[in-house]
Amino acid sequence: MRLIPPLSTPGAWPVDAPCPIEATIRVIGSRPAMILLREAAYGVTRFDDFTTRTGLSGATVATRLAELTDAGVLERQPYRAPGARSRDEYVLTEAGHELLPIIVGLFTWGMRHAGPSASLSLTHTECAADVHAEVRCASGHPVALDDLTLTQTEPTART
Amino acid sequence: MRLIPPLSTPGAWPVDAPCPIEATIRVIGSRPAMILLREAAYGVTRFDDFTTRTGLSGATVATRLAELTDAGVLERQPYRAPGARSRDEYVLTEAGHELLPIIVGLFTWGMRHAGPSASLSLTHTECAADVHAEVRCASGHPVALDDLTLTQTEPTART
Repeated sequence: MRLIPPLSTPGAWPVDAPCPIEATIRVIGSRPAMILLREAAYGVTRFDDFTTRTGLSGATVATRLAELTDAGVLERQPYRAPGARSRDEYVLTEAGHELLPIIVGLFTWGMRHAGPSASLSLTHTECAADVHAEVRCASGHPVALDDLTLTQTEPTART
Repeated sequence: MRLIPPLSTPGAWPVDAPCPIEATIRVIGSRPAMILLREAAYGVTRFDDFTTRTGLSGATVATRLAELTDAGVLERQPYRAPGARSRDEYVLTEAGHELLPIIVGLFTWGMRHAGPSASLSLTHTECAADVHAEVRCASGHPVALDDLTLTQTEPTART
């Protein structure tokens, strides 16, 4: 990756500069948050199902669902099961759907490199080909790490 | 996402089944690990630079770099600064490079949806177009969440 200005420029890339990767990690970077997102991607929407399916405590699920809702990843929608009072369910927002490359990236990397090889396949429903996440530019070129340029367009404010 | 068998099938998707997403999160899912990966993607290789640039403690950096090395994401390579004894530096392996869609996904999502808008742009060096992560199948079709099928190819063993 090429950095502009170069990483070695004194003070150019301070530790405390706002970083969009860190900002995303603050939202989804805890294990419970990621597991709940996985379940939301699987189609889970109800509090009880999030709890049952993840083995997380009710308190953890409540806290993390609230955080993901505040961050705009999930939104509450009322539903009413037959004979029961109205409750909220949690569904992915548009911003939540935009996390899909991250979720698919985690899945594919895990299948290739981490832990026991689960007997799973993730495919495109229409054509049955395997699915993966990849990096491209707006012109459609595939982009590798060495082809990236990160540019600071204004000096980073230090506090 | 379509699941085969359906998520509602009793016992088909147990809490304790091996999950490649969880396996990846075990490797890179802590905030320090992700921050160190960001720095490695920026081109940082030396222990002291990882410590100085992240504000993480030396103990945390040492533990996490060892974990990332054991997981095959980083590898140690000896180097010798002029007049100093030989030391190791940490460089991304091929498996480490395969994390790029996740790292770029975190960056792009943060720029769009999280926190203060940093004055940064991530572009393709050759053509200067903006870069993003996306989900595609092996046939090259763009794939959205609703177009995905996750299939269990063998029954999941319960312990």
